[in-house]
Amino acid sequence: MADTKGFSSIETPGYVGFANLPNQVHRKSVKKGFEFTLMVVGESGLGKSTLVNSLFLTDLYPERIIPDAIEKQKQTVKLEASTVEIEERGVKLRLTVVDTPGFGDAIDNSNSFSAILEYIDEQYERFLRDESGLNRRNIVDNRIHCCFYFISPFGHGLKPLDVEFMKKLHSKVNIVPVIAKADCLTKKEILRLKCRIMQEIEGHGIKIYPLPDCDSDEDEDYKEQVKQLKEAVPFAVCGANTLLEVKGKKVRGRLYPWGVVEVENPDHCDFIKLRTMLITHMQDLQEVTQEVHYENYRSDRLAKGIKVKENGIKQERDNNVNAQAQANNALSEKDRILQEKEAELARMTEMLAQMQARMQAQH
Amino acid sequence: MADTKGFSSIETPGYVGFANLPNQVHRKSVKKGFEFTLMVVGESGLGKSTLVNSLFLTDLYPERIIPDAIEKQKQTVKLEASTVEIEERGVKLRLTVVDTPGFGDAIDNSNSFSAILEYIDEQYERFLRDESGLNRRNIVDNRIHCCFYFISPFGHGLKPLDVEFMKKLHSKVNIVPVIAKADCLTKKEILRLKCRIMQEIEGHGIKIYPLPDCDSDEDEDYKEQVKQLKEAVPFAVCGANTLLEVKGKKVRGRLYPWGVVEVENPDHCDFIKLRTMLITHMQDLQEVTQEVHYENYRSDRLAKGIKVKENGIKQERDNNVNAQAQANNALSEKDRILQEKEAELARMTEMLAQMQARMQAQH
Repeated sequence: MADTKGFSSIETPGYVGFANLPNQVHRKSVKKGFEFTLMVVGESGLGKSTLVNSLFLTDLYPERIIPDAIEKQKQTVKLEASTVEIEERGVKLRLTVVDTPGFGDAIDNSNSFSAILEYIDEQYERFLRDESGLNRRNIVDNRIHCCFYFISPFGHGLKPLDVEFMKKLHSKVNIVPVIAKADCLTKKEILRLKCRIMQEIEGHGIKIYPLPDCDSDEDEDYKEQVKQLKEAVPFAVCGANTLLEVKGKKVRGRLYPWGVVEVENPDHCDFIKLRTMLITHMQDLQEVTQEVHYENYRSDRLAKGIKVKENGIKQERDNNVNAQAQANNALSEKDRILQEKEAELARMTEMLAQMQARMQAQH
Repeated sequence: MADTKGFSSIETPGYVGFANLPNQVHRKSVKKGFEFTLMVVGESGLGKSTLVNSLFLTDLYPERIIPDAIEKQKQTVKLEASTVEIEERGVKLRLTVVDTPGFGDAIDNSNSFSAILEYIDEQYERFLRDESGLNRRNIVDNRIHCCFYFISPFGHGLKPLDVEFMKKLHSKVNIVPVIAKADCLTKKEILRLKCRIMQEIEGHGIKIYPLPDCDSDEDEDYKEQVKQLKEAVPFAVCGANTLLEVKGKKVRGRLYPWGVVEVENPDHCDFIKLRTMLITHMQDLQEVTQEVHYENYRSDRLAKGIKVKENGIKQERDNNVNAQAQANNALSEKDRILQEKEAELARMTEMLAQMQARMQAQH
């Protein structure tokens, strides 16, 4: 197992970590509080709710009823947003979790994507409308800042549904792939599955959320942490909200006849790493959403009617893919220049469209 | 945990148990050997091959290549039969395992059933042709005697695909439901899932293979064993072919950072129970296939053109459903009499059809 320096939550249980947020942005935002919207996608039973509850030490779904096979058959993919306000050391976080019950549960899952795509676009559309309005001070940001995509630990890699989903969504939202319920895999199996999944993600040209590279002046501990986080993708996780006693200590875990899985033990699963990633990159996830995904949406909307060359602006930041992907998938220098030109072109097209819109408004 | 008297294989590892077969049927069959065909159905990655290999201590798929998501997307459900000859204490078993790769892997699984249904019917058709021929001495029996249906441990019960499959197949083949990879569930979760699955099976009127009741003069140990087997349905299993050392003893198991799952430990999973069930009921599984499922097929074939009332002959033996089902689903005495009448009617219709066929042949 790799060294796990920097993931200190084990020593201070119950400390989630978002009290660090103020250091990431300006101090005055503390008073206002933070907003974050997380989407969770994956087949029923992969432990989405349990994981989210474990991550934020809260109970997002107190009155949950699980449908049976017949109800599942009838049900289409719904989207359900639950919001909780959590406070830690004086810092408030308004967390919205958007669940997608029904995804992948039907016999025919061809339409599993459309409801999710529509939902994401609706949030962008609402934000665009608010942003274009007069009073821009109290805009509620319901855009999806991050999407945890749950991969079954049993597939020998990705399923066709997984590939299809990520391909359709990767230019709309920051996808963070996680291997669900990883406590059913041995260490060897986890390594093999991670390796296979990353190969398939690269092979299919899927762009998952790229953990940004460290600045060279960052301290060594942080650099080491980011390196370990990058290596851990896709995070193999396991959630639990039950407190068990192991060697006199209370731990969150699952009790099997052959032992106890400790959720917050980095030797048992990547739960702590996923939480660290989410907390330390909340600000970046919001930025990428604003600067890449939302700008993509906005430019598409404004240039509606004018054919914008594909792979335009969205390529700009997406080039910053994570290290493994970069190594295998690197674009040659020429391609990069070409894409910059295309991005430039797309930006100009957008400006043109805006001008046209303004002119029409004046008529 | 229930008492596990009667599941003695732990003490004599490597002893599968089919050496008991000769006691079940006549002695001379020993020389000829036994034939058995097992079908395994379930999504990729549920451990079908591992389980079958663990059950018979053999390697049925030495050169297996696992397709990736794109190949899975293109691939339809195929059926692949692998045959091994195993010998134990002088008794030969010619075991055929029919695998169904591709089942449930597509985005749209609406056609997952048809290939399997066709395959089963083809075997019946071939047997019918051979049986109607002149030389009936060396008929090879490739009919499916038992179908292990693998249910995902992560569903909160059955999926629509599971219900649909079992409904379409239950009058064609002996279905034995198993909960796959049960080492990812705690004891409490296993109990809850078993309970929910049985409720759904009964609620949907699905008829799984009914373990026959014991004769009253059977010895107490055997009665206890059958009782425990009945209670264990659907068997929660976990396979492994790796030998690990636990407290100085070699065991088949899976090594996790928090402990070792011992496949043949009845406290860890139902593997031994499933094997005991299969071995001690091989003869009965063949009988039910011959007397119920094949006779259904044959009568349908012979009466082709004449409308046979539904629920006819097939009800005869199916009434002998397993204990739990019986309790909840019991037919009233009147219904039973009605069904007997219907069965009688169906039998007469069949005879009529045979006579007509003979008459036509004479013309």
